[in-house]
Amino acid sequence: MIPMIFKARILDLETGTSVVLMNETDGDTMNIHPGDRVILRISAKSTVAIVNITGIIEHGTIGLTKDVNDELRARTGEAVEVVHAPQPKSITAIKDKLNGRRLGYDDIYEIVKDAVNKKLDKNELTAFVVALNAFGLDIEEAEYMSVAMVKTGEQLGLKKKRIFDKHSIGGVPGDKTTLLVVPIIAAAGLTIPKTSSRAITSATGTADRAEALMPVDLSAEEMRKVVEKTNGCIVWGGAVHMAPADDIFIKIEYPFSIDPLLLPSILSKKKAAGSTDLVLDIPTGQNAKIKNKEEAWALTKDFVTLGERMGINIRGAVTYGEQPIGYAIGAAAEAREALQTLHYRNTVPDLIDKATSIAGILLEMGGKENGKKLAKNIIDKGLAEQKLRQIISEQGGDPKVKAEDMQIGRYSADIESEFDGRVLSIDNTVLAYSTRLAGAPKMKSAAIIMHKKLGDSVKKGDKLLTIYSDSTSGLKDAERYVIDNAGIVAASGSSMLLKEIHIEKMPQRGFVLER
Amino acid sequence: MIPMIFKARILDLETGTSVVLMNETDGDTMNIHPGDRVILRISAKSTVAIVNITGIIEHGTIGLTKDVNDELRARTGEAVEVVHAPQPKSITAIKDKLNGRRLGYDDIYEIVKDAVNKKLDKNELTAFVVALNAFGLDIEEAEYMSVAMVKTGEQLGLKKKRIFDKHSIGGVPGDKTTLLVVPIIAAAGLTIPKTSSRAITSATGTADRAEALMPVDLSAEEMRKVVEKTNGCIVWGGAVHMAPADDIFIKIEYPFSIDPLLLPSILSKKKAAGSTDLVLDIPTGQNAKIKNKEEAWALTKDFVTLGERMGINIRGAVTYGEQPIGYAIGAAAEAREALQTLHYRNTVPDLIDKATSIAGILLEMGGKENGKKLAKNIIDKGLAEQKLRQIISEQGGDPKVKAEDMQIGRYSADIESEFDGRVLSIDNTVLAYSTRLAGAPKMKSAAIIMHKKLGDSVKKGDKLLTIYSDSTSGLKDAERYVIDNAGIVAASGSSMLLKEIHIEKMPQRGFVLER
Repeated sequence: MIPMIFKARILDLETGTSVVLMNETDGDTMNIHPGDRVILRISAKSTVAIVNITGIIEHGTIGLTKDVNDELRARTGEAVEVVHAPQPKSITAIKDKLNGRRLGYDDIYEIVKDAVNKKLDKNELTAFVVALNAFGLDIEEAEYMSVAMVKTGEQLGLKKKRIFDKHSIGGVPGDKTTLLVVPIIAAAGLTIPKTSSRAITSATGTADRAEALMPVDLSAEEMRKVVEKTNGCIVWGGAVHMAPADDIFIKIEYPFSIDPLLLPSILSKKKAAGSTDLVLDIPTGQNAKIKNKEEAWALTKDFVTLGERMGINIRGAVTYGEQPIGYAIGAAAEAREALQTLHYRNTVPDLIDKATSIAGILLEMGGKENGKKLAKNIIDKGLAEQKLRQIISEQGGDPKVKAEDMQIGRYSADIESEFDGRVLSIDNTVLAYSTRLAGAPKMKSAAIIMHKKLGDSVKKGDKLLTIYSDSTSGLKDAERYVIDNAGIVAASGSSMLLKEIHIEKMPQRGFVLER
Repeated sequence: MIPMIFKARILDLETGTSVVLMNETDGDTMNIHPGDRVILRISAKSTVAIVNITGIIEHGTIGLTKDVNDELRARTGEAVEVVHAPQPKSITAIKDKLNGRRLGYDDIYEIVKDAVNKKLDKNELTAFVVALNAFGLDIEEAEYMSVAMVKTGEQLGLKKKRIFDKHSIGGVPGDKTTLLVVPIIAAAGLTIPKTSSRAITSATGTADRAEALMPVDLSAEEMRKVVEKTNGCIVWGGAVHMAPADDIFIKIEYPFSIDPLLLPSILSKKKAAGSTDLVLDIPTGQNAKIKNKEEAWALTKDFVTLGERMGINIRGAVTYGEQPIGYAIGAAAEAREALQTLHYRNTVPDLIDKATSIAGILLEMGGKENGKKLAKNIIDKGLAEQKLRQIISEQGGDPKVKAEDMQIGRYSADIESEFDGRVLSIDNTVLAYSTRLAGAPKMKSAAIIMHKKLGDSVKKGDKLLTIYSDSTSGLKDAERYVIDNAGIVAASGSSMLLKEIHIEKMPQRGFVLER
């Protein structure tokens, strides 16, 4: 290959990948196609970049994005030697997967490493993820992915023999269980370093809920200090840089509503935190992501099998997922409900039951007896509330925060029953999306408060739920969406038609399971 | 959804897709993720664009690429109303294919239309193509793709009842058959409007070969005029805008060496040109793209079946593909050899045999008898040369061009036999890639001239082939590559080891069949 000398042009452009721009004529001369790699060299410094061909770059000039020039540090006009680079091993491996071949550890490590180092572009990552989705990963490939994702990031490094964790695959709005489970487990003396995600397609992620109470964007070191003092924490997974490849892959999967990397994604983060014991919460129901117990069983089996290979002991918990947990949906409203529940103890029976069930399994995995009863005791004695306030304090929040401090939207709209009868159906996805229309997750005060739940008796004109927002137009959109899409349906006992399906008007759904 | 007003910033950036850039904070406020669509509005004008999130755009500003602003025509600082757009039907269809569902005509038309109108980004097109490759297209999907690709482009519109064509799936270097077949068929009074591609992974495309003799970048209208005068033409397919989606999909497939759209790609272009009768040349051999007769048969069957649905009568021709056709590889050298063959008539027996075989089938499809003999007569009487010169003239070239006018590289290197014996193996891919290293396809003078072919007797020190280039470093790379990768092997009769395979040193191969 014949090397060529180009003049550097520094671009005010950051793409998230090592990309250079080149004129079409120069590309032709060098036999370079868009997507090919080149090696760039200035005296001793060199780096590899992906070529984009564009008309905005003059002949003889090479456009360096910030991503590239952070490594190369060229000055405008400086001479850069450019030569065709051989195909990286990661691309060979991606091509293998595109043709349905299974990958070995080295293949997968190269892909994950190059993804983290910005050496693969979005397009190449998409090809890989779509091929994984089409052909599937076998158990060894899933293990290799998980291990590679751990190795290419930070690890928490707590000096504990047993580390506990819970994970919900999500899909049920208003699920603030984690805000109760973490303080229960920590109060019982077990270690639970919990990282959570923000909302992607849902109304609120646990990180969003917790953020209504305390700062959640801690570094891995800050997180370790909190756990060492309190046995627990609830932080956002995005800032700790554990298994950073996961975030890269999620961004690729999200727009296509596919998630072939679900298992490695979850277990790599648990492994990086040092988890030895994990309860997997699988909300199940026709309204949830997992539709029935068979699906829940199959998913649990996949997790347990992969967990065994990675030294993580996993138990699955199938939970009732037909309707929201408790009455509140939306970050501030949910934080308020969690705090009230820990303080007043028996206001929200389904939330308490779910939290003590999950916590109970963890406590029994940790060698305690009568886990659920013990968990309930810890709430009833006020130890869980006390522990939560200690965690809030250590994470930099106000330990004296009150439920009433949580601001809910200024404007509100009631959805009322049109019939005497009972609540026949609640659509989780419609309520979640409606909360988003009201402003969630960005607007923490956007909320839905349920007044009635499945099976409750109603009279015509009774409030079924109330939507809150600080935006009048957002409120209107949210209200219309709930009504148009039958978010909650009350009818007389003999009314059987819940909803007519218009195939051309499928509501926007997020299929991605929580990680 | 809450609309927001942004200040327009006009970017000096052309991406080939309708893309706008937005600040992360603004994206969060609007609940917009990278890859989501927005509707942009300035008074009566509006357009849809895909959002990229980047730090280089200030809060409150929206960056408009040239692709977007060609439609919107905003001025710097002008107010643009931005609102979340619903998911386009094409994306819903792509997601369906990602999950292995088959697509209907409307789905496929939406995807092809949005691809041509720059409304799908590279990433989305990659997801579609990778999913097609993984799940395959059934015959109806292939027909839908072909029809949609014809409908979204120009059509030639020749007023002829029967239109003939040939197509080679390629893979054999030095294959200048088309330069002979087109004038033979046109001289026999049949219509053959041939479009060809430039080299993608090969050393030379037919468009490159023809370009050594005449201009090939004609518009559809110019092409029609040439065919109306001469019955034939040899033009580059890229400039005629027939089935323009094909070029978009090829660019997506190429970097991943996959080609799920091979059949629709080829037949949509033939259909747009009005073809009714087609011979498909399938060079077959362990050194070619198609390895054996069974593969060739299966490919032909797919073509014939799809052809029937599209009203194109197709016959397959399995041709010997173990070694280059004739002696010359490289655009100028091949044009020279083709011209010499038509002029002197029996210098290159394998080329004449192949050209008259293919032309013979076409002539018989057109109702002539003894096609191959007739084709040979047309060459022998000088009618083919005369017709080629008429086509050269009508396409804007010099009809008096001589074989000696074709310039071959100034510098040369000989590869010599190390043994007394016979030529045991020739690797097509190695010779093609070596010609590329010498400078092809950009450098038309880069060439390999074979002195010996398979089975020829050699003595130690005999020249096996000579490489030509105008670049000394390119020549050196090409020479080294042929030697290191056993491009041509001569040995004594009892020598059985042709080559040791190093799996970590797999030569770069182009798997994409010619279109």
